[in-house]
Amino acid sequence: MPNSVYKKLELVGTSSASISEAINNAIGTASGEIENITWFEVAELRGHVDKGAVSEYQVVLKVGYRISE
Amino acid sequence: MPNSVYKKLELVGTSSASISEAINNAIGTASGEIENITWFEVAELRGHVDKGAVSEYQVVLKVGYRISE
Amino acid sequence: MPNSVYKKLELVGTSSASISEAINNAIGTASGEIENITWFEVAELRGHVDKGAVSEYQVVLKVGYRISE
Amino acid sequence: MPNSVYKKLELVGTSSASISEAINNAIGTASGEIENITWFEVAELRGHVDKGAVSEYQVVLKVGYRISE
Amino acid sequence: MPNSVYKKLELVGTSSASISEAINNAIGTASGEIENITWFEVAELRGHVDKGAVSEYQVVLKVGYRISE
Amino acid sequence: MPNSVYKKLELVGTSSASISEAINNAIGTASGEIENITWFEVAELRGHVDKGAVSEYQVVLKVGYRISE
Amino acid sequence: MPNSVYKKLELVGTSSASISEAINNAIGTASGEIENITWFEVAELRGHVDKGAVSEYQVVLKVGYRISE
Amino acid sequence: MPNSVYKKLELVGTSSASISEAINNAIGTASGEIENITWFEVAELRGHVDKGAVSEYQVVLKVGYRISE
Amino acid sequence: MPNSVYKKLELVGTSSASISEAINNAIGTASGEIENITWFEVAELRGHVDKGAVSEYQVVLKVGYRISE
Amino acid sequence: MPNSVYKKLELVGTSSASISEAINNAIGTASGEIENITWFEVAELRGHVDKGAVSEYQVVLKVGYRISE
Amino acid sequence: MPNSVYKKLELVGTSSASISEAINNAIGTASGEIENITWFEVAELRGHVDKGAVSEYQVVLKVGYRISE
Amino acid sequence: MPNSVYKKLELVGTSSASISEAINNAIGTASGEIENITWFEVAELRGHVDKGAVSEYQVVLKVGYRISE
Repeated sequence: MPNSVYKKLELVGTSSASISEAINNAIGTASGEIENITWFEVAELRGHVDKGAVSEYQVVLKVGYRISE
Repeated sequence: MPNSVYKKLELVGTSSASISEAINNAIGTASGEIENITWFEVAELRGHVDKGAVSEYQVVLKVGYRISE
Repeated sequence: MPNSVYKKLELVGTSSASISEAINNAIGTASGEIENITWFEVAELRGHVDKGAVSEYQVVLKVGYRISE
Repeated sequence: MPNSVYKKLELVGTSSASISEAINNAIGTASGEIENITWFEVAELRGHVDKGAVSEYQVVLKVGYRISE
Repeated sequence: MPNSVYKKLELVGTSSASISEAINNAIGTASGEIENITWFEVAELRGHVDKGAVSEYQVVLKVGYRISE
Repeated sequence: MPNSVYKKLELVGTSSASISEAINNAIGTASGEIENITWFEVAELRGHVDKGAVSEYQVVLKVGYRISE
Repeated sequence: MPNSVYKKLELVGTSSASISEAINNAIGTASGEIENITWFEVAELRGHVDKGAVSEYQVVLKVGYRISE
Repeated sequence: MPNSVYKKLELVGTSSASISEAINNAIGTASGEIENITWFEVAELRGHVDKGAVSEYQVVLKVGYRISE
Repeated sequence: MPNSVYKKLELVGTSSASISEAINNAIGTASGEIENITWFEVAELRGHVDKGAVSEYQVVLKVGYRISE
Repeated sequence: MPNSVYKKLELVGTSSASISEAINNAIGTASGEIENITWFEVAELRGHVDKGAVSEYQVVLKVGYRISE
Repeated sequence: MPNSVYKKLELVGTSSASISEAINNAIGTASGEIENITWFEVAELRGHVDKGAVSEYQVVLKVGYRISE
Repeated sequence: MPNSVYKKLELVGTSSASISEAINNAIGTASGEIENITWFEVAELRGHVDKGAVSEYQVVLKVGYRISE
C-alpha cells in the first residue's frame, strides 16, 4: 500500500485586517505543530462588528496534510 | 428571563473595489438604523463582470444584533 | 420569444497573490473566448499551502453570459 | 461609498389557484410597504391538500430591494 | 398522549401538461389508498425533453398525513 | 386575492437553562412587537461552554406570522 | 446473502410538552405496527406558536428498522 | 464499452409569462446547437420584480444529452 | 390522467464484501415485495470498522417504482 | 499577529436521559484533555430505539477552543 | 498572470458492470475531445434496476482540466 | 455518567486500485494510532486522472471511535 493518506483539521483564523490574514494566521499557527500542511478549504466566512464596521474577520477553514506515504 | 435575544437581517453589500468594502458597505448602511450590530455571516459571494473583469463585488450576508437583554 | 437565455460555466481561477486576482484570472481567461460574461458566483474557496503559508488561492466560480436575446 | 446596499425579506405567499399567483400575492402585499422590490428567489414550494387535491400553494420566497444608493 | 403523529411519503408525479398537474397527479394517485393527506412539499423539479421542448414534467414531492390522533 | 401572506424573521434565543427556554425567549421577545406569530423553525443549535459544561444554549430560529388576510 | 437490510420511514411527532416527548410520540405510534425500530434521526425541528409561546413542538424524524436478516 | 455517456449544461431561461415558458426558452435555445437534449433539472427559481409584480421569471436549470453511445 | 406516478422508499443495504453488493442486497430484498423497482439513488455511504479494516459497507439508498400508469 | 486561532473537534455525546445531557457528556469528556472549550455547534441529532421508545440520544457536535492568542 | 485557470464539465458515465467503470467511461469519452483532464469529483451515484438487480450504474461527476497556464 | 462519548476524525484515503482500497488505506493508517475505530462515513469521492483514465481514487471520509465509556 504505497498510497498516501491525509488528515484534515478544522480551524478558525481571525484577523482585524483582512480575510487573507485570517486564513494565514490559522495556517501559520497550525504549522507550528504540523510541518506538512499542503492545502486548505474555506467552510465559513464571518466576523465581529464594532461601531458599524468589521472589527474582526473570522474564517472557518479545514487544512489537510499527509500522515502516511 | 435575563437571557439575550438577537435578530438577524439579510443584506447585500456591493463594491467596485473589494469584497471587504462590500461587506463594510452593507454593515455601514444598516448601522445607520441599527446601532448595535455585533456580528456578520457571509452567505454568498458573487458579482458583476464588465469587459472581462469584475466591475462589482456583491456579498450576501446576515448581520446580527441584540433586541433584548 | 424575446426572452434572454444565459449559459453558466464552472471555472477555477488561481493566484499566488489574492482571492480577487484568482477570480479575475478565471474571468479574464474565459473572456478570451466568450465576450459577454456578465456575472460570477463563487462556489468554493480553497488553496495550496507551502511552508506554513498560503502559496496559491484557488477559487471555484461560475460565470454566466447571454446566449440568446 | 456610492455602492448600493440591498435588503432581503423572507415571505410566504399563498394561493388556491397557482404557484405564480402565490409568488405575486407575496410580492404584491410586501409592495404595499416597500416600493422598490426588484427581485425574488424561491426557497421552498409546498402546499395544503384537501380531498386528494391541492387546495393551497405555499411559496416561501425572498425578496430584495435597495436601501441605499 | 393526545398529540398527533404524521407520516410522510416520497412520490414522483408526472404530467405532459404542467408542474401543477404533475403535483396533483401524485397526490390524486396516493389519495386512492390514503384518505387524509393534508400537505405536500416539493423536493425536486425535473423532466423529460423531446425535440427541444419539455415533454414531461416530473415533480418529486413528499406528502404528509396523520396516522394517530 | 383573499389569500394570506406571511413574513418570516430570523432570531437567536438564548438560555442558560434549556433549549426550550431559548426558543421561548426568542418567541416571547419578538411577540412584544408582533402579536400573531404562529410558527417557528429551528435553523441552528449551538451554545457557549464554560468550565467544561454548557453555560448558554443559543438557538437560531425563524418565526412566521401573517401580514395579510 | 446473510447481510441485513433496513428500511427508513419519515414521521412527524408532536407534543405540547417537549421535543423529547414529540420524538417518543412518533416512535411509540410507529411501533404499534413495526416492532423492531432500532434508530431514529432528526431531520427538522419546528412548532406552533400561540400567544407568544410554543404551543406544540413538531419533530420531523426518520426511523429505521431491519426488514431482512 | 457500449455504455452511454452524457453531458450536462447549466442554463438560465427567462420569460415574462411563466415558469414553464422560461424552462422551454432555455431548452429551445440550447436545442439550436444540441439536438439530443433528453432531460432537465431545475436548480433555482427566481425572477425580476417591477412595480410590485413579477416582470420576469428566471429558471436556472441543467440539461443533459448523450455524447457517446 | 395517463401520466405515471412513482413512489420512493428509503433503504439501507449492507454487505461485508463491497459497496455494490450492499446496493444489490437492499434492492433484492425490497424486490421480494415490490416487483417493479426501476431506479435507485445513493444518499449516504458509510460502514462498520473492525480491527482496522472495513467489516461492513452500509449504503443508504432510495429506490423508485411506478404505482400508477 | 495578536489574533486568536481556534480549533474545532467533532464529537458524539450520548445519554439515555436527554439531549442536553448528551451534549454535556461530550463536552465534559473532551474537557478532561482540553481546558478551554468555549463553544459548541450541534450537527446531527439521532438516537437508539428499544421497545418503542428512545433508549439513547446521540448528539453529533463540534466544539471549539483557542489554540493561540 | 502566470497563474493557471481550469474549467470543469459535468458528465454522467454509465456502466452495467461497476461504479468504477462508469467513472472511467465518462472520463474516457470526454478525453476524446479534451486531452488534459486532471481530476474528477463524484456528485451523484444512482442507477437503473431491472428484475430486482442493478442493471446500470450511473455516476454524475465533474471533470477538471487546465485552459490556461 | 456511564454514557459513551465518541470522537470523529476527517481523513482522505487514496488508492490507484479502487474506492474500497482508498477507504481501507485511510482506516488502516489511522488504526496505527487509534485502536478502536468503529465506523466510517464517506463525505466526498474524487480522484486524479492521467491520460484519460482514473489514476488515483481519493475518498474523503470521517472515522469515529469511542473516547469514553
